[in-house]
Amino acid sequence: MVAVLKPSATSEQIENLTQWLKERGLTVHISKGEFYTILGLIGDTSQIDTELLESLEMVDKVKRISEPFKSANRKFHPDDSIIEIGDLRIGGPNFQMIAGPCSVESPEQILAVAQSVKSSGATILRGGAFKPRTSPYDFQGMRADGIELLLEVKKQTGMPIVTEIMNANHLPMFEQVDIIQVGARNMQNFELLKELGKTNKPVLLKRGLANTLQELLMSAEYIMAGGNHNVILCERGIRTFETYTRNTLDLSAVPLLQELSHLPIIVDPSHATGLARLVQPMALAAAAAGAHGIMIEVHNDPAHALCDGAQSLRPEQFAELSGKIKKIREAIAI
Amino acid sequence: MVAVLKPSATSEQIENLTQWLKERGLTVHISKGEFYTILGLIGDTSQIDTELLESLEMVDKVKRISEPFKSANRKFHPDDSIIEIGDLRIGGPNFQMIAGPCSVESPEQILAVAQSVKSSGATILRGGAFKPRTSPYDFQGMRADGIELLLEVKKQTGMPIVTEIMNANHLPMFEQVDIIQVGARNMQNFELLKELGKTNKPVLLKRGLANTLQELLMSAEYIMAGGNHNVILCERGIRTFETYTRNTLDLSAVPLLQELSHLPIIVDPSHATGLARLVQPMALAAAAAGAHGIMIEVHNDPAHALCDGAQSLRPEQFAELSGKIKKIREAIAI
Amino acid sequence: MVAVLKPSATSEQIENLTQWLKERGLTVHISKGEFYTILGLIGDTSQIDTELLESLEMVDKVKRISEPFKSANRKFHPDDSIIEIGDLRIGGPNFQMIAGPCSVESPEQILAVAQSVKSSGATILRGGAFKPRTSPYDFQGMRADGIELLLEVKKQTGMPIVTEIMNANHLPMFEQVDIIQVGARNMQNFELLKELGKTNKPVLLKRGLANTLQELLMSAEYIMAGGNHNVILCERGIRTFETYTRNTLDLSAVPLLQELSHLPIIVDPSHATGLARLVQPMALAAAAAGAHGIMIEVHNDPAHALCDGAQSLRPEQFAELSGKIKKIREAIAI
Amino acid sequence: MVAVLKPSATSEQIENLTQWLKERGLTVHISKGEFYTILGLIGDTSQIDTELLESLEMVDKVKRISEPFKSANRKFHPDDSIIEIGDLRIGGPNFQMIAGPCSVESPEQILAVAQSVKSSGATILRGGAFKPRTSPYDFQGMRADGIELLLEVKKQTGMPIVTEIMNANHLPMFEQVDIIQVGARNMQNFELLKELGKTNKPVLLKRGLANTLQELLMSAEYIMAGGNHNVILCERGIRTFETYTRNTLDLSAVPLLQELSHLPIIVDPSHATGLARLVQPMALAAAAAGAHGIMIEVHNDPAHALCDGAQSLRPEQFAELSGKIKKIREAIAI
Repeated sequence: MVAVLKPSATSEQIENLTQWLKERGLTVHISKGEFYTILGLIGDTSQIDTELLESLEMVDKVKRISEPFKSANRKFHPDDSIIEIGDLRIGGPNFQMIAGPCSVESPEQILAVAQSVKSSGATILRGGAFKPRTSPYDFQGMRADGIELLLEVKKQTGMPIVTEIMNANHLPMFEQVDIIQVGARNMQNFELLKELGKTNKPVLLKRGLANTLQELLMSAEYIMAGGNHNVILCERGIRTFETYTRNTLDLSAVPLLQELSHLPIIVDPSHATGLARLVQPMALAAAAAGAHGIMIEVHNDPAHALCDGAQSLRPEQFAELSGKIKKIREAIAI
Repeated sequence: MVAVLKPSATSEQIENLTQWLKERGLTVHISKGEFYTILGLIGDTSQIDTELLESLEMVDKVKRISEPFKSANRKFHPDDSIIEIGDLRIGGPNFQMIAGPCSVESPEQILAVAQSVKSSGATILRGGAFKPRTSPYDFQGMRADGIELLLEVKKQTGMPIVTEIMNANHLPMFEQVDIIQVGARNMQNFELLKELGKTNKPVLLKRGLANTLQELLMSAEYIMAGGNHNVILCERGIRTFETYTRNTLDLSAVPLLQELSHLPIIVDPSHATGLARLVQPMALAAAAAGAHGIMIEVHNDPAHALCDGAQSLRPEQFAELSGKIKKIREAIAI
Repeated sequence: MVAVLKPSATSEQIENLTQWLKERGLTVHISKGEFYTILGLIGDTSQIDTELLESLEMVDKVKRISEPFKSANRKFHPDDSIIEIGDLRIGGPNFQMIAGPCSVESPEQILAVAQSVKSSGATILRGGAFKPRTSPYDFQGMRADGIELLLEVKKQTGMPIVTEIMNANHLPMFEQVDIIQVGARNMQNFELLKELGKTNKPVLLKRGLANTLQELLMSAEYIMAGGNHNVILCERGIRTFETYTRNTLDLSAVPLLQELSHLPIIVDPSHATGLARLVQPMALAAAAAGAHGIMIEVHNDPAHALCDGAQSLRPEQFAELSGKIKKIREAIAI
Repeated sequence: MVAVLKPSATSEQIENLTQWLKERGLTVHISKGEFYTILGLIGDTSQIDTELLESLEMVDKVKRISEPFKSANRKFHPDDSIIEIGDLRIGGPNFQMIAGPCSVESPEQILAVAQSVKSSGATILRGGAFKPRTSPYDFQGMRADGIELLLEVKKQTGMPIVTEIMNANHLPMFEQVDIIQVGARNMQNFELLKELGKTNKPVLLKRGLANTLQELLMSAEYIMAGGNHNVILCERGIRTFETYTRNTLDLSAVPLLQELSHLPIIVDPSHATGLARLVQPMALAAAAAGAHGIMIEVHNDPAHALCDGAQSLRPEQFAELSGKIKKIREAIAI
C-alpha cells in the first residue's frame, strides 16, 4: 500500500501516522519529494481501511499495491480450487455445461428440457424459481413450487441443479439444491453473502452489472470469510453505453480472474447478450478464453408461441454448440 | 408500445399475435413496410412483459412508448407528492437539509454532530448504523446499537432520523426510525423492496451505481405496488469511466425525475464525489437544479486524527453551505 | 421509423407533418392513443434527419426501425465483402493474421519482426509510424521515416503493410501503403473519413473508445459514401468502468457486425487489454467468435530492457498463438 | 511516481532500472516487501513515458502521483488564467454567456438571434458553420459561407464569435474568428491541436464523450506546448449507460478542473442533455458550481415548423435564464 501525503503535512503529523501504521504491524518507508511525500507500507495491509486512511486531512491519496482479498487470492493458494458435487468436479482441468430454461414453468417443461440437454452433454441443470424482475408487474417465478419441480427432476435425471436465491430466509428451501446462485443484482447484498458463508453449499456468484473484478472477488471473500470456500465465479456481462446487446460480455474477465484467484470461473452468454443468435459465438469464445464452464438457457417448446425465449437456444442448437465446444477445448489444450 | 416484426413473419403469425394482444385489451394498428411490419399498440401496456414479446421468433424488437411505471408516474398523479413526518414536509415547494455523520460511532459523537447541524439549519439527522462495505474486513457499523443511539439523539434534539436498512429481518428495529434508507447496492433487492412496500414508513430510495432513472422508478414502483406511497428518490452518482471522483453525480436526474414522477428527489453530493471539497459546489448545483433537498455528511471531530471523513464537511463548512443554499433557493424562485 | 407525438399535438400540426413526410416519399400510418399518437413511417428513411424531426415541438420522440446506414448494410448487400490486396483476401471465409511492432523504431527492428512473424503465419505487417499519444511529451513516432522503413521491409519480405494515418494531408506518403488504418481517436474525424472516401485504398477503421456499433458503421458509411467500399472494421475495446484492463474487448461486436454488415471484421486484442498475457486468450476467443482476422503486437527484442511492450508478444509466443488459432478455425468450421 | 516491481525482479534488474531512472534526474526510494518492491520516484516525472516503464518485464504497475500536465497545471501557475478578447475577459471572477443557434442558416437568422441574445445579456455569439454529423447524409453546415455570415454579424453587433473548426487546413478562414472551438469528437485529434498550438487564437476545447479530465488537460497541454496558452475548457457531457439524456453532464468537472488547472471552464448544457427543457436547470446548476460561463443554443424562429431545435431555447427563455444566472452568481459570491 502506498499513501501519498500532501505537501502541507507536518513532520509531527507524519510521525504520528507512521507510529499508528507501525502499531498495525506494517513497515513504513518514507520518500520525501518537493510536492508530495510517499509512504510505502509493507506487510499485511488487507485489514487496513483505505477510506479511513484517505479521509485524513494530510493524506492526498492511498493506492493499494496488493489486493484486498485473501481467501480468494491465488497468491496464497496457487492451485486451482476444485469444487466437488458428487462425482462432478468444477474448476481446474474440468469443463461443465450448465443448461436449462430461464424459468421453471411446469413439471413437463422442466423434465423435457433436462432430458434433452443431458443427452447433449449438459452436466448441470439450471432453472429459475425465484426471478428478479425490474418490474413488479412481470412474472416473479414459481418460487417454492419451482424449487420442488427442480428437485423432482434432479431425482429423475440424476442431474445436479443450480437455482437462484433472493432472500436468506429462503435458505431452508435450498437444502437439497446443489449450487445456490447469487444473481448480479445481489452481488453486493452483503447480508445474503454472510448467510451463505455460514453454509457449505457451493455458491455460483454472478458479477454485478457495474462491478469491477476486484469487487466480485471481495464479494467472494465475504462468503469465504464465513468459512464457505465453495465459490464459483460467473461473468455475465457488464453495463456499457452499447445498446445492440443487453450487456457487454467481458471475456477478459476469464483469464484475469484465473490470474488473480484460484476459484473456478463460468461464463453466461445468454443473459449477457440477451440474443439467442449471439449465444453460440460467445459460448465458443468463452471456451477459447479458458473458462471452466458455460451456462446456457435452453427452451424446449418452439411451438409455444409466446415464450420461446429471446435469449434461449432450442435443444438442437444446444447439441450443435456442445459438439463445437468439445473441439475448442481440444484446440486450446495443445 | 411498438412491436417491429421481421419480414419473415407470416400473415397467420401476425393474425395470431394481434389476436393475443387484443385479448389483453390493446388496440393494434398495423403498418406494413418492405423490410418491417410495425404494430402500434394502444392502451394500458404496463402489464405487458416486453421480454416475453421480444422473445417471439417473428418479433424484431419492441419499444415502449409509455413508461412501465404507474404509481410513480406524474401522468397519473400530476401534483407533487408531499411526504409528511410530523410537521416536516418533503417534496413540493419544501427544501430539506439532511445532515449527519457517515457512521454512528458513540453517544457523544452523534449528539454533538446532531446539535451542531441542527443549529446550522439541518432538518433531518442522518447516520449509518448498518454499513454496506465492499470488504468483509472493513468496519460494518454499530448495527443495533447504532440505531439505539440515533433514537436517543432523536429524543434529545427532536430531529427526525434517517438510517439505512440492509435486511428485511431488521425491520422491527426500525419501528421508531422516521425514514428508512435503501442504499444504492440494494436498489434492486426486490425482496427487501416488497417488504418495505408492506409498511407505511417513508423510504429514501437511492439510485444504484449503474441504474437508469427508469429502473429507479421501477424500484419505487415495487414499494408503491405494495401500498406504501411514501417514497423519496435520491440521486447519489453513477459509475462512469472518470476516476478523479468516486462516482459521477448526474444532476440532470433532478429535473428529469420531476418531469417523469411526482415523488420528491434528494441529492447526496458526499457519496457521489467522495471528496469533501466538492460537496459545497455540488450541493449548491443540486439546489440550483431544483432538488427537494440535499443529504450531507458532517463530522464533528477534527482532532480525531484517524477519521475526519474524506467526504465529510466540518460543522462550520456545513453552516456556510447552509447559508448559500438559502440564497440559491431564492435565486431560482424568481 | 416511428415518430411519437405528444398528446398536445393538434390535428392541423399532425396533418402538416404527415404532408411533409409524404413529400419525402414516405408512407405514413397513424395510430392514435390516449396519451400518444404514433406515426409509423414506411419507405427510405435513411435520408431523414432524426434530430430535425425530434426537435419539433409536437414530437415526443423518434425511433429508427431500420438502420441509418445503407452501403454498409447487409440487407442491401447480402454476401460478405471480400477485399483483395494482391493475392490476399480479407473477409468471407478467409482469416488474416496481422502482426508487427507497436512502433517502427529502426530498419533492423522492423525487418527482424517482419521476418519472424511471417515465418509464424502472419500475412500482413503492422507498424506505427505516426503515433497518437495522449501526452505531447511522449514519443510521437518516426513519422515519414517510419513509412519509408515499412515500405523497405514490404519490398524485402513481400508482406502487405498497414499503418495509421492521422492527417489527410499525409495521404501522398501512403501511396504505397496497402491498408490505411484510422485509429480509434479518429473514428469520427469526419474530414479525414471523407478524404479517404475519395481514394480506393483499403481502410482499416477502428472502433472509437466510446462509440456504438451503429456509429462505427456510420463512419464506414462516410468512407463508402465517397465511393471507396474497401472498408475493414476493427474491434479494439471500449471504455468502461473496469480498471484491470485498459479497455473492455467487446467480442459480441464480431457476430453483431457480421449480422448488420457485409464488411470484414478484425479484432485487436493487444490494444484492448493492454496486457501481453491476455493477448493469447482474447485472440483465441476472437477467432472462436468468428472474426475475419486478428491484429497482434509482436516485439522482437527481449534484451532491450526498456521497451519490451506491455502489450506485445514475443515471436515464439506469436508462433504458439498462430498454431492454436488454426485449430480453433477448424473447430468452428464443422 | 511509484513503480511496483514483481517479486521475480532480481537485484541486478532493480539496480539497472534504478540507474536508468537516476540518469533521468529522478531520486529513487526503494521499499522492499514480501510480495512486491516499491520504487518511489521523486523529481520531474512528467517526461517519463508510463507505458514504456510499465512494459518492462519486472514491473507490475506504475502509478503517477503528480499530474502529467505542466503548462495547464495550477501547481505551477496558482492564479486563474484570464483570456482577453478586446475588452472581454474570460476566467477569474468573470462570467460569460455564450449564445446562438446550433447552425448558421441564413443572414436573417443569425442576425436576428445575435441581436436577441445580446439584448438579454449574451456576451459572445456562437453558431456552427462546419457541423460534425454522425451520418454522411445529414446536413453538414454552411461551411465557408457560414463563417462569412458570422463575421458579418460580428461587424453589425460588435459581438465576438466562436465557431468550430474540423480541419487544420481551414485555419485561414478562421483569421477573424475570435474563439476557435474544438469539438468533442476532435478532442484527441492531436494533429489539429498541434496546429492550433502554433497560433495565438483563443481555443474553446470541448471534453470528449469518453475522455477523463486528465485527458482533457493533456489535450490542452498539446495546444499550450506549442506556445498558445489561450485555452478555455468546456464540459459538455460524457457518455454513460443512461438513455433519457443524450449524455450525462458531469458538473463535478467544474470544481475539479479549477483545482487542477488555472484555465477557464465553460459548461454547455444544451449538447449535454439534448433536451431544451433541461437547459435552464443545468445552466443554473453550472453557475452554482462555479463555472466561468455557459454556452447555450438559442433559436429564433418558432414558426419555422421543422427546425426549432430539440435542445435550443427560445429567446424569451434565454432572457429568463439570464436573469436567474445573475442571481445565482450573487448567491455564491457571499
